[in-house]
Amino acid sequence: MTRHELVEKVREAKRARGLTWEAIARRVGRHKVWTTAALLGQHPMSAEEAQAAAEVLGLDREAVALLQEYPTRGTPGQAVPVDPTIYRFYEIVQLYGMALKELIHEEFGDGIMSAVDLEVDVRRQVDPHGDRVVVTLSGKFLPYRRF
Amino acid sequence: MTRHELVEKVREAKRARGLTWEAIARRVGRHKVWTTAALLGQHPMSAEEAQAAAEVLGLDREAVALLQEYPTRGTPGQAVPVDPTIYRFYEIVQLYGMALKELIHEEFGDGIMSAVDLEVDVRRQVDPHGDRVVVTLSGKFLPYRRF
Amino acid sequence: MTRHELVEKVREAKRARGLTWEAIARRVGRHKVWTTAALLGQHPMSAEEAQAAAEVLGLDREAVALLQEYPTRGTPGQAVPVDPTIYRFYEIVQLYGMALKELIHEEFGDGIMSAVDLEVDVRRQVDPHGDRVVVTLSGKFLPYRRF
Amino acid sequence: MTRHELVEKVREAKRARGLTWEAIARRVGRHKVWTTAALLGQHPMSAEEAQAAAEVLGLDREAVALLQEYPTRGTPGQAVPVDPTIYRFYEIVQLYGMALKELIHEEFGDGIMSAVDLEVDVRRQVDPHGDRVVVTLSGKFLPYRRF
Amino acid sequence: MTRHELVEKVREAKRARGLTWEAIARRVGRHKVWTTAALLGQHPMSAEEAQAAAEVLGLDREAVALLQEYPTRGTPGQAVPVDPTIYRFYEIVQLYGMALKELIHEEFGDGIMSAVDLEVDVRRQVDPHGDRVVVTLSGKFLPYRRF
Amino acid sequence: MTRHELVEKVREAKRARGLTWEAIARRVGRHKVWTTAALLGQHPMSAEEAQAAAEVLGLDREAVALLQEYPTRGTPGQAVPVDPTIYRFYEIVQLYGMALKELIHEEFGDGIMSAVDLEVDVRRQVDPHGDRVVVTLSGKFLPYRRF
Amino acid sequence: MTRHELVEKVREAKRARGLTWEAIARRVGRHKVWTTAALLGQHPMSAEEAQAAAEVLGLDREAVALLQEYPTRGTPGQAVPVDPTIYRFYEIVQLYGMALKELIHEEFGDGIMSAVDLEVDVRRQVDPHGDRVVVTLSGKFLPYRRF
Amino acid sequence: MTRHELVEKVREAKRARGLTWEAIARRVGRHKVWTTAALLGQHPMSAEEAQAAAEVLGLDREAVALLQEYPTRGTPGQAVPVDPTIYRFYEIVQLYGMALKELIHEEFGDGIMSAVDLEVDVRRQVDPHGDRVVVTLSGKFLPYRRF
Amino acid sequence: MTRHELVEKVREAKRARGLTWEAIARRVGRHKVWTTAALLGQHPMSAEEAQAAAEVLGLDREAVALLQEYPTRGTPGQAVPVDPTIYRFYEIVQLYGMALKELIHEEFGDGIMSAVDLEVDVRRQVDPHGDRVVVTLSGKFLPYRRF
Amino acid sequence: MTRHELVEKVREAKRARGLTWEAIARRVGRHKVWTTAALLGQHPMSAEEAQAAAEVLGLDREAVALLQEYPTRGTPGQAVPVDPTIYRFYEIVQLYGMALKELIHEEFGDGIMSAVDLEVDVRRQVDPHGDRVVVTLSGKFLPYRRF
Repeated sequence: MTRHELVEKVREAKRARGLTWEAIARRVGRHKVWTTAALLGQHPMSAEEAQAAAEVLGLDREAVALLQEYPTRGTPGQAVPVDPTIYRFYEIVQLYGMALKELIHEEFGDGIMSAVDLEVDVRRQVDPHGDRVVVTLSGKFLPYRRF
Repeated sequence: MTRHELVEKVREAKRARGLTWEAIARRVGRHKVWTTAALLGQHPMSAEEAQAAAEVLGLDREAVALLQEYPTRGTPGQAVPVDPTIYRFYEIVQLYGMALKELIHEEFGDGIMSAVDLEVDVRRQVDPHGDRVVVTLSGKFLPYRRF
Repeated sequence: MTRHELVEKVREAKRARGLTWEAIARRVGRHKVWTTAALLGQHPMSAEEAQAAAEVLGLDREAVALLQEYPTRGTPGQAVPVDPTIYRFYEIVQLYGMALKELIHEEFGDGIMSAVDLEVDVRRQVDPHGDRVVVTLSGKFLPYRRF
Repeated sequence: MTRHELVEKVREAKRARGLTWEAIARRVGRHKVWTTAALLGQHPMSAEEAQAAAEVLGLDREAVALLQEYPTRGTPGQAVPVDPTIYRFYEIVQLYGMALKELIHEEFGDGIMSAVDLEVDVRRQVDPHGDRVVVTLSGKFLPYRRF
Repeated sequence: MTRHELVEKVREAKRARGLTWEAIARRVGRHKVWTTAALLGQHPMSAEEAQAAAEVLGLDREAVALLQEYPTRGTPGQAVPVDPTIYRFYEIVQLYGMALKELIHEEFGDGIMSAVDLEVDVRRQVDPHGDRVVVTLSGKFLPYRRF
Repeated sequence: MTRHELVEKVREAKRARGLTWEAIARRVGRHKVWTTAALLGQHPMSAEEAQAAAEVLGLDREAVALLQEYPTRGTPGQAVPVDPTIYRFYEIVQLYGMALKELIHEEFGDGIMSAVDLEVDVRRQVDPHGDRVVVTLSGKFLPYRRF
Repeated sequence: MTRHELVEKVREAKRARGLTWEAIARRVGRHKVWTTAALLGQHPMSAEEAQAAAEVLGLDREAVALLQEYPTRGTPGQAVPVDPTIYRFYEIVQLYGMALKELIHEEFGDGIMSAVDLEVDVRRQVDPHGDRVVVTLSGKFLPYRRF
Repeated sequence: MTRHELVEKVREAKRARGLTWEAIARRVGRHKVWTTAALLGQHPMSAEEAQAAAEVLGLDREAVALLQEYPTRGTPGQAVPVDPTIYRFYEIVQLYGMALKELIHEEFGDGIMSAVDLEVDVRRQVDPHGDRVVVTLSGKFLPYRRF
Repeated sequence: MTRHELVEKVREAKRARGLTWEAIARRVGRHKVWTTAALLGQHPMSAEEAQAAAEVLGLDREAVALLQEYPTRGTPGQAVPVDPTIYRFYEIVQLYGMALKELIHEEFGDGIMSAVDLEVDVRRQVDPHGDRVVVTLSGKFLPYRRF
Repeated sequence: MTRHELVEKVREAKRARGLTWEAIARRVGRHKVWTTAALLGQHPMSAEEAQAAAEVLGLDREAVALLQEYPTRGTPGQAVPVDPTIYRFYEIVQLYGMALKELIHEEFGDGIMSAVDLEVDVRRQVDPHGDRVVVTLSGKFLPYRRF
């Protein structure tokens, strides 16, 4: 079983059992963004988390082992995403990437917002003009080492 | 004068006058992310905003007119950004794009987080283990029209 | 069963039963463009629509469930379409994209025509010099949020 | 003077004189979409049209001659457009291209909607839930020659 | 059975039966270029043609149905062909494309040679210095619509 | 002066003097396709041809020398042409490239139609249903050397 | 069986039988470079050669037929080779391609070294500072046809 | 002066003085392939070589210094060369690259033919059926280090 | 069995048996970087090494033979790696590649650090501010041959 | 003055004054790799460092200011480097990237070697079989945040 096949199995089990990502995350004991990303092949789980995920989804022992492996992260062959819901995030990088870079440097000096020591959240903000999706990225600032 | 040349002029004036983006934004009367993006060629300014920006930066009348034009947005020729500070945002899309899509659908149904009716904020969060960069994206949820 | 396999099944069933997209759409109760796009993997169906589509096409229960899933939209690996009938639409974007942008801004101000809150129609216009294909795109204007 | 430089001159003159594309089109005597596309380098003008455009924009004789030349159409180096207002049209091709192909074949048989014998219109449709941009493409159906 | 698999079957049957494209075309009743292109997945056949092709090649009923479907034309994933015999045609476009454009405009005005209302022929021209391949393209001139 | 600048000069001189490519070709004493391609930077001219071209176009001595140089042929940065008149030739390669390959092998055996020992012609064919552009490619067959 | 599968079979048979390309070539009666390229899918074999290759490798009748087919040459999807031993040849084209072009033109005039009427050899040259790989390309000079 | 400008100057001086690469190479005291490549920006020259090249070409002191710099080798932006004379070498890599790799491994074991410790020669081989271009590559075999 | 399938088998066996790369390398008798790379398809093993690897991993005879084959090295279809742990190395090339080139030339003259006669090591360096990954590349300097 | 022009100026001044990167680095007071990268546009300098660099290179005040700016790092338009000395590092990522990833995870767990908190060194290692280039990368290990 490859990672790709495992992700397909996860999707099929979730559909067959009528589960939500949020419910799975609660059982796994992690944030819904982290859990969803992990089950889609972007993070390794601990033994307990993999066991919990396998139970709720009805996966076998091989899946439990595979869920704990360090995956090859990212979406190969998709330099520019085509799904509109994902593309909008890419578009934000195209439009605001340089401005965010300038303001990070202005506030913190030379460095980056880590994409590794990072938390991601997504939630609904009720709004009379139409509810809003609020995505929060909280990444540790890493200064460039000067040597 | 093209947009590209205008952006170069803005950068030179900012450097020569020792200004920060935040200070310029205060004079323009807009959020620092919006103002920085606009001065980097991603948004048109109103007449008043362009006038204010030109004053603080010492730009001429042609610049004032150009700042009000609808720009061709985005960063052509940069499908994958190479600057590390910007690339980390691209990496986040690579790793979390699919998970965010799943969770937006789970919470809101079929649709997207708008990249047009969108606010972007960046701020420092003090943390004893190292301060964090917090980027918040607040975009209106747009449901797919079914016809 | 993956989405890709489902689309292949839909095509085979349609061919075997001698159906038209228009006839399927009538049974599904939606516009022919929306229904065709949905069955080609670009939109999720409601439970009733999926049921109706499955009946007319003779699909099984797994297909009914899959038709209701949020698909990963778009055509990965096809940045520039090669089929001539599809390419002509791409060519129109190449030639008229900038002009449409200018005129949308001139009429509506800064913003976009939504590709999400969008209706698409295609119909025949009888013409003595040769009938014409008329495609109509009706998308909500979304103004850029200034913050 | 190259085409690219001519387009820059047109934009500068339009900005300096405070003109709209619609006003220029009225003076040129053509549809606003065609005129805008032509002045952005996508169509050659007749001698009279070029003369009229030059007068309203204050362009010189070389520009008049150049406006009548057959341009190299399209946007080289932009396989996927990055400006959001233009990208949305590209996204529509990604999502609805295959469905339109199927329905064109279903209604007309084997062939294409011409992108050459084509008219493009864009207009505002007032709507209480938010005005809509309506783009209409009317292209002659061209059947494949069977030989 | 997908189109791709059908093309493989056609090639295998042709090889097993020792047929030439020209012989198949005679049985199908169409020009050898058209017939070869159709059997390689570039054109739909009429019911009679598909029946005739299936007989000479020994294909089953599903193949007969599939041969009549509107194919997705072109060679995806092959922006620049690598087979030398095909590449030479690409090279001709690289070297003579602009000259042909200029001369078509000079002779016919603004428009294109249709690639849809098109006939293609290839034949041998005996030559004492070495026989020549003569390829003839005859496409209807389509003038740009001015609106 | 680079080749690129020379081509721009040729175009400007042709426009200023109201010449046609056909008229220039007659003065140069070569076929119109070859002459146009040469003046667009795809072929070197002989000293006499360069002299004749320079006279009819009013070019200086440096241009005469440059016209005789071996150019770097092709259109760099344009893997897929975007101008519709040129794109149609590319589309023909996409649709008929494989069929032409098969038929060349069937008639001549293993080899190619030369793109070097090649003549290209374009002419009008009067047709009551609309005149046709006829492009003829005559290339020497080159058999693969077996060693 | 596709070409790709045939090549895999050839490799497996060669490995299982402990053969060298040179030994196979001797049995086929052709140069080792030509034979290796042919068995890797780059050249069609004659009936005798295919028979000989099949015997030494233990291939079946279908393989014999397939070895005689005109292959689609080249390595699709590998514009820039990544294997270091192959990449070095690509690097040589990057560094010396233009110089070779200049010197071919200087010695022969306008034309190319044929890649079709071509012989390729590779051999060891003993050298006290380390043996050398000597690759010789001998291609017929083809002058450009002037018309 | 950049490298690119220096190469342009070299070409102009060579044209103006009617020199051949071979003549320049004799004056520089190096092989014609090496010298041509060096003057086209692919190799640094020694002080004496740069001096000699500058004298024969009439270049100034800045050029002499620049010719001795370590250049950034290769042809950026040209992953696949389009000039036919250069493309043929690329085609040879496409067709024979894998065969050469196999035969190098068979003869020498695991390693590469160096593209750095490499000599390149090109010469004419008289042939009654048409003279041939013979290109010889002699590169040191470098075995992979096993550690 | 292809190389790709072999690598999958290696990963599955390593997971099932709970082995580390380091433990496998000790059994193979080679450095952990070399052994891991070899088992991931980047190096051929000797007969003894392949035998040892097969024993510890429980692979069959075909695997032993395949492990000794010269692989097609590299990661096709991954011009820019997307996994963050691998991407960081790519980023280092983007940022420090030119500086390393300059300093290699300054210290050694014209040439390269070999990627063939190369040793790679990775180890932990304990550090009170957070442990560090230390990667060492030791490649033979290869001077450019001047001819 | 843009960054690109500044880098050109630095190179010209270094050449004109006969300086080495190492000598400049000593004057700047930083490691030669860091200093070279900074002067090639990959790092911002402190005021003192910029002043020192400007003095040794004879640069003006604008350069001093520009050297302190946060640059847009990386080499846009060069996804795969073509210069052989730089390409070898890219090749190492292609061959050893996955192995390094596996071993970093094995030793440190889930995370990356930072490319920001990173030191790079390059030095000569004398070796009787030919001196070696030794490049050392020391990057802080950053564990993935689990949330």
